[in-house]
Amino acid sequence: MSDILQALQVVLAERKAADPDTSYVASLHAKGLNKILEKVGEETTETILAAKDAELSGSTKEVIAETADLWFHCLVMLSQLDIEHTAVLAELERRFDLSGLVEKANRAK
Amino acid sequence: MSDILQALQVVLAERKAADPDTSYVASLHAKGLNKILEKVGEETTETILAAKDAELSGSTKEVIAETADLWFHCLVMLSQLDIEHTAVLAELERRFDLSGLVEKANRAK
Amino acid sequence: MSDILQALQVVLAERKAADPDTSYVASLHAKGLNKILEKVGEETTETILAAKDAELSGSTKEVIAETADLWFHCLVMLSQLDIEHTAVLAELERRFDLSGLVEKANRAK
Amino acid sequence: MSDILQALQVVLAERKAADPDTSYVASLHAKGLNKILEKVGEETTETILAAKDAELSGSTKEVIAETADLWFHCLVMLSQLDIEHTAVLAELERRFDLSGLVEKANRAK
Repeated sequence: MSDILQALQVVLAERKAADPDTSYVASLHAKGLNKILEKVGEETTETILAAKDAELSGSTKEVIAETADLWFHCLVMLSQLDIEHTAVLAELERRFDLSGLVEKANRAK
Repeated sequence: MSDILQALQVVLAERKAADPDTSYVASLHAKGLNKILEKVGEETTETILAAKDAELSGSTKEVIAETADLWFHCLVMLSQLDIEHTAVLAELERRFDLSGLVEKANRAK
Repeated sequence: MSDILQALQVVLAERKAADPDTSYVASLHAKGLNKILEKVGEETTETILAAKDAELSGSTKEVIAETADLWFHCLVMLSQLDIEHTAVLAELERRFDLSGLVEKANRAK
Repeated sequence: MSDILQALQVVLAERKAADPDTSYVASLHAKGLNKILEKVGEETTETILAAKDAELSGSTKEVIAETADLWFHCLVMLSQLDIEHTAVLAELERRFDLSGLVEKANRAK
């Protein structure tokens, strides 16, 4: 399950070089950083609204879909700035001192 | 590297049950969904500003730190709504048809 | 100059009752509060990006246009919730104790 | 009622030159544009959450207070960029062709 971000980063790197007329990802890169950041902002608002609606309805489908949209556009932003998503994960690992837990999870495989 | 989100989810689940006076995560859950969503919005704005500054300065440290903050607060939001982060990753896998790539990466380990 | 928000509120009230197929404002109301709030979020991100660009370029045209978009969609939100924009202005007057200044400005007309 | 934004702009211009240790507005200007834009983003999220809650509860007090916060921080942003708020109002007047309505309202005074 957990290698999905890695696989997605590979796909995004391929599409960054694709034709903007046929690839949504390529079209975002062609439009530039502002367009990508607009999408990050947009998906955050949609995530917030979906979370508020999930709180009431108990239905989580929308908030899962919107969070996926948000993370996807964050990855496009990182790609635009030539940052590997693993730099973000490493920052989280460092802050929460997760190295022991990650090692233990890997041994359990 | 990629099991960090899983390890972080384990940590967040533990802290959800901790004392709000000593754990930041517990204090967010105690304050409720609105407070958590305010943080998601806040970190998005800080990510956007850091990305704009990174575009100019070439320095990526801030945008990595702010994206980590954003993803962290997204995980707290998912935890508040009793959603596993793997549901978001599965949605990304489905959309981008990543299953072949993920399998290949796992075989290479 | 300062009665523009009042005039705009009159226009927005008329369009709220218009045909969603021909009026953008009516179409927003027909789609409901979430759609209107998505636009508020979107215009905020565009305002933030325009302000960052204005800081560099010295050009203020975009930030003026985006702030106008933001305030406009705030007025549509207030209209959707049956709130007069004067309630927001009264709150600002109360907080900043502006009544003396406003009275003085009115006498000077 | 409608001269409140004008009065507020006068107050904000005075406070821009005040001591950052005693004036919130001066402290925002001293911290710079990013800090001001963070506040604009923050208040937008709080406005969105208050609007969602108002939709359910019928209580409009919070959404009025948060929209006031948002407009206030927009005015601080304009002040930071040396833009008069009347430039934003003039843009709205132009777009919605409000000049006739504004003139009529002024005659009725």
